[in-house]
Amino acid sequence: MTAATRPDRRKPDALRCIRFRPKIAPEAAGSVLVESGRTRVICAVSVEESVPRWMREQKVSGGWLTAEYSMLPYSTRERKPRDISKGRLDGRSQEIQRLIGRSLRAVVDLEKLGARTLWVDCDVLQADGGTRTAAITGACVALEFAFHKLLKAKLLAESPLKERVAAVSVGIVNGRALLDLCYAEDKEASVDMNVVMTEGGRFIEVQGSGEEATFTDAELEAMLALARKGVADLLAAQRKTLD
Amino acid sequence: MTAATRPDRRKPDALRCIRFRPKIAPEAAGSVLVESGRTRVICAVSVEESVPRWMREQKVSGGWLTAEYSMLPYSTRERKPRDISKGRLDGRSQEIQRLIGRSLRAVVDLEKLGARTLWVDCDVLQADGGTRTAAITGACVALEFAFHKLLKAKLLAESPLKERVAAVSVGIVNGRALLDLCYAEDKEASVDMNVVMTEGGRFIEVQGSGEEATFTDAELEAMLALARKGVADLLAAQRKTLD
Amino acid sequence: MTAATRPDRRKPDALRCIRFRPKIAPEAAGSVLVESGRTRVICAVSVEESVPRWMREQKVSGGWLTAEYSMLPYSTRERKPRDISKGRLDGRSQEIQRLIGRSLRAVVDLEKLGARTLWVDCDVLQADGGTRTAAITGACVALEFAFHKLLKAKLLAESPLKERVAAVSVGIVNGRALLDLCYAEDKEASVDMNVVMTEGGRFIEVQGSGEEATFTDAELEAMLALARKGVADLLAAQRKTLD
Amino acid sequence: MTAATRPDRRKPDALRCIRFRPKIAPEAAGSVLVESGRTRVICAVSVEESVPRWMREQKVSGGWLTAEYSMLPYSTRERKPRDISKGRLDGRSQEIQRLIGRSLRAVVDLEKLGARTLWVDCDVLQADGGTRTAAITGACVALEFAFHKLLKAKLLAESPLKERVAAVSVGIVNGRALLDLCYAEDKEASVDMNVVMTEGGRFIEVQGSGEEATFTDAELEAMLALARKGVADLLAAQRKTLD
Amino acid sequence: MTAATRPDRRKPDALRCIRFRPKIAPEAAGSVLVESGRTRVICAVSVEESVPRWMREQKVSGGWLTAEYSMLPYSTRERKPRDISKGRLDGRSQEIQRLIGRSLRAVVDLEKLGARTLWVDCDVLQADGGTRTAAITGACVALEFAFHKLLKAKLLAESPLKERVAAVSVGIVNGRALLDLCYAEDKEASVDMNVVMTEGGRFIEVQGSGEEATFTDAELEAMLALARKGVADLLAAQRKTLD
Amino acid sequence: MTAATRPDRRKPDALRCIRFRPKIAPEAAGSVLVESGRTRVICAVSVEESVPRWMREQKVSGGWLTAEYSMLPYSTRERKPRDISKGRLDGRSQEIQRLIGRSLRAVVDLEKLGARTLWVDCDVLQADGGTRTAAITGACVALEFAFHKLLKAKLLAESPLKERVAAVSVGIVNGRALLDLCYAEDKEASVDMNVVMTEGGRFIEVQGSGEEATFTDAELEAMLALARKGVADLLAAQRKTLD
Repeated sequence: MTAATRPDRRKPDALRCIRFRPKIAPEAAGSVLVESGRTRVICAVSVEESVPRWMREQKVSGGWLTAEYSMLPYSTRERKPRDISKGRLDGRSQEIQRLIGRSLRAVVDLEKLGARTLWVDCDVLQADGGTRTAAITGACVALEFAFHKLLKAKLLAESPLKERVAAVSVGIVNGRALLDLCYAEDKEASVDMNVVMTEGGRFIEVQGSGEEATFTDAELEAMLALARKGVADLLAAQRKTLD
Repeated sequence: MTAATRPDRRKPDALRCIRFRPKIAPEAAGSVLVESGRTRVICAVSVEESVPRWMREQKVSGGWLTAEYSMLPYSTRERKPRDISKGRLDGRSQEIQRLIGRSLRAVVDLEKLGARTLWVDCDVLQADGGTRTAAITGACVALEFAFHKLLKAKLLAESPLKERVAAVSVGIVNGRALLDLCYAEDKEASVDMNVVMTEGGRFIEVQGSGEEATFTDAELEAMLALARKGVADLLAAQRKTLD
Repeated sequence: MTAATRPDRRKPDALRCIRFRPKIAPEAAGSVLVESGRTRVICAVSVEESVPRWMREQKVSGGWLTAEYSMLPYSTRERKPRDISKGRLDGRSQEIQRLIGRSLRAVVDLEKLGARTLWVDCDVLQADGGTRTAAITGACVALEFAFHKLLKAKLLAESPLKERVAAVSVGIVNGRALLDLCYAEDKEASVDMNVVMTEGGRFIEVQGSGEEATFTDAELEAMLALARKGVADLLAAQRKTLD
Repeated sequence: MTAATRPDRRKPDALRCIRFRPKIAPEAAGSVLVESGRTRVICAVSVEESVPRWMREQKVSGGWLTAEYSMLPYSTRERKPRDISKGRLDGRSQEIQRLIGRSLRAVVDLEKLGARTLWVDCDVLQADGGTRTAAITGACVALEFAFHKLLKAKLLAESPLKERVAAVSVGIVNGRALLDLCYAEDKEASVDMNVVMTEGGRFIEVQGSGEEATFTDAELEAMLALARKGVADLLAAQRKTLD
Repeated sequence: MTAATRPDRRKPDALRCIRFRPKIAPEAAGSVLVESGRTRVICAVSVEESVPRWMREQKVSGGWLTAEYSMLPYSTRERKPRDISKGRLDGRSQEIQRLIGRSLRAVVDLEKLGARTLWVDCDVLQADGGTRTAAITGACVALEFAFHKLLKAKLLAESPLKERVAAVSVGIVNGRALLDLCYAEDKEASVDMNVVMTEGGRFIEVQGSGEEATFTDAELEAMLALARKGVADLLAAQRKTLD
Repeated sequence: MTAATRPDRRKPDALRCIRFRPKIAPEAAGSVLVESGRTRVICAVSVEESVPRWMREQKVSGGWLTAEYSMLPYSTRERKPRDISKGRLDGRSQEIQRLIGRSLRAVVDLEKLGARTLWVDCDVLQADGGTRTAAITGACVALEFAFHKLLKAKLLAESPLKERVAAVSVGIVNGRALLDLCYAEDKEASVDMNVVMTEGGRFIEVQGSGEEATFTDAELEAMLALARKGVADLLAAQRKTLD
């Protein structure tokens, strides 16, 4: 890969083609298949009419939102064994599902949700880099579908969604800051950063890390600028689907 | 539910609408989303260029085929916890994936496959009864796609598929034999039977069981007759997709 | 093995010698060591004065019956590692214990049992084919002993056993249908079928499967005929022990 | 229970009735059902023609002997759940199987055994106190049967058994030292001691413990004296079976 | 190692240097780092204001004390993998923590403790033989610190500690009885014995075992004599720290 | 807590008192007890003379470094159950140990390390906020001790440490950016950020997240400025210990 071009000839600040296919899982309260280039993730929201035990025991009012993330075994060229075949969830998946949960809780008013648990499941159907950010961006759409349904059924008086959220990856590849890395780029990147932001332009998460590498203030700033642009474009795509 | 009509007004010997959507998981060697009424199952075949340890140790020649079955958490109205959250695969899923594996091995020439393992993954996206039989019927299609690909890539000289296979459920509901039960019917059924057959009209599996009920020779015969008709219709649908 | 004779010179429609040795486990409410040729299984019924959580939560009345099946490590020539050493029950054992449970629940009036759980444990002491069917046939005897005890202790007013049950294996070996396969025959069989029937001649379970083989209608019919004869003989043997 | 008499009117220095029933598990290389009063344990020895990985890696010559202990679920009045249902072996069982293994290894010449593993399985069929000591006493008999078989098959040139071993429990109940406690006595005991000794009158294990109690030198001495007598009687019973 | 001298030139009846460093874990109710030569164990007591479920269910009055023992991975020259990386506690650790728990319960008046659970955690920081006995000796000190704190906070009216407890290992090395074995001696020992005693000179536990070896009455007596002396010296060291 | 003062009256840009106590675990190749205010973490480095399986299989040259993180049960006021008692490592601990591993690998030349694995164990003895950053800062010191030892033993020709690393937490509490949060502050923080930096002033990790809150560019900048100052102070403290 030369420094000059990206595998799909995108500009450094261009997103991959993003698409939301609603109702992929009709039994869920809300669901969407989000496609970002060749990355495809099923996002589905289920509603449980109770709250976790720790909330009942500590008498915390309102509801809860929890996320689960998994890569389907056929999402990668070389088949990825199921979590259950190893008897435990791997560390990467746990980290990702905790990130998804925190990101969505930041934009949901758990008090307005009432004594319910929202389960947000993100299953990767095809993995080509950026699955965790696609999951967050897609889950926001599925969540809004679920709230529409609950509002229509008069189970909610008002939407608990405070504002929309989207996420994108950025990185330094061959010394250049790039937006929305595909897998081939991700493997070459010296720094990898995931940024989760709200419609209002505020950060929810900033996670940058150099595996066997480090980065400067200037590189951090360049990546954050790309991320801001990318998130704005993703929010526009969400609006087209939802409005 | 009265004895006279079925929830979707089907005749006793009618299948639900069956449809195969290819390439649901592009990283797999072959994949299909099979839809049987409201039941939807992702079937994907991955190829591993090695065989299980027991085959190497026992110096068994040829290849192997193994199946895994799982219900995605949002496939049911009430969310189904993931296997990993309980730390183990439940008995029902194990039984089903063993059945799928046996059914497909009966029509695959493992010698012609060469020293490879075929992983057949069946993930239920929406569950409305008959998920195990839909999985077998769909997996046969995914398998044929995978063999096409291997043949095209000259990795196989000849297709290892000896003949096609399809499966259907039958049951006794309110004293009447019915073909292809949906979930509402399945819950009412006194006897539930799954039949797996080849194109050549031979049985691979016949599994009939009465939970807290029993059945007569005549009822067994009536169910087998319906199954034969259902399998023939499924094989015709497969042909339309594959030929 | 030639097609003409069976390892122990039995006729195609002959059972192995069947024997029930009561009180093998005196702490159980009812127990028996069932011997079918060289296959030997401990069947023991324990009574728990409560019902599973799901019954209490769903307010289901009556009692429950659940079965557990295990092969003792020294039941086979090559020692079989304990389930616990692998940390999980293997798929085959789970499938068998679900079959035993279903078969017995079909002949027990759970309402008459009252708010109790019957635990039916089947531990294989020596394995020479047909352990699951011997387990069902023996468990029926152990169950009846347990009911005698509960009736005598006035804990039950009436026996919850609706009718007796017995089970037998049949198969196609070298093109011939045979009754009650021993291990050497089972390994050669192209089709293996287990049939569970009641005293009244009704089916509870019919499970036929060809591993890497298939079977015709005529073969299915021949196997069912042998199974009917075998079950009748087993019921006669049970009567001799119990009456 | 008064201080003066034992539940079965035994003298303080009397064993319960001891009996060895050979060939309880015919597939094992050697097996015996040992009965000590109402306590009954299946002891079976299997031979594996290889050694554990750590021996191969550390290039230790000779063979190995390992023991596994389990209580069958119907061995107690109140059913004891299987280890597998809790997913792990409980601490007590682990402790006991380590004791059995150590005790037998002390009398087996592992060098003479050759590159083999002996698996000694002890499954409690009925539990009335003293199951671990009965297991050791019975396992010694099963081991000798297994060695006879290996010698006869010319797989061994010489028996690896250096001398016989037997084990017995002693305790302080209501201030009195008693030999071979049954369960009712064990529950009342302030001190419980297990002693494993060889034919030559040497100790292999001495394990005395006071749960919520303590004991003096004199009590220790009294218990050891009873244990010596008990072991001598057990060795005599073994001789009657074996010679 | 010649028979005449010990690695650190100690006399056969001499303890290693013993030291107690209080407050190693300030969040615990009582804690101490016990050092016995090069063996170092963190002993910490935590108080939970409730009792285990089995006590509540069986309506047992008073409190409970339970111990957990673990070797930190860097306590040995060759790193010891954590229990969690194998998914289960190994048999040796379970046996040791059961021993620590029993030993301490023998000197604690659980009735006076009230409806509380004492958690005694023993983590080995450096292992050079005798970790289990150091853990018991140190835990007694940590326990007394915890009781001081509870008394001072008026949560207890009276100390539940009935008397102090200490433990020491003894063994037969090259035919000679030795007190307080270090790791190099322990590896050479033909017999290994752990003795737990109270201030009042009574035994709580006597556990002697010969791995691939046996021992005589005279050797048992010699080891017990050394143990009595060792425990007396340890109790003196505890007094210096506590009084 | 008013906005004006911190619990320990520190200035917003002041670290807690930091101290390194070497040789806490003498069997390790290098070890240190790092104290940051009331937070205390044992950091120990063990050397294994082999590399993980995946490196051997993929023929990756050089060595590896892996970290494990655990909270000792008595590190918190309310006792924290051990990982092993729940059978699995919790998500938070996994995430932290992955962070520690990545941070250290960024400053270690794995090629120079040779075919070895460095195990970095971080066990929290007392938890008062900032345990993961203290672990990284302390582990760097322990690592350098381990390299000194390997250099002295001529096992390494040159130190694989490219430069030192330190880590610190920052956060937004009541609208104010604060350096090095203690637990009481951490609980009140709307945003929590961990920053890992090298001596050369480059970032290794930047992880900022708002749980149920968001943050602006200006807040991000303010936190990064504090982090830079904190890391510089920590590096100075490391120098005092190491040089």
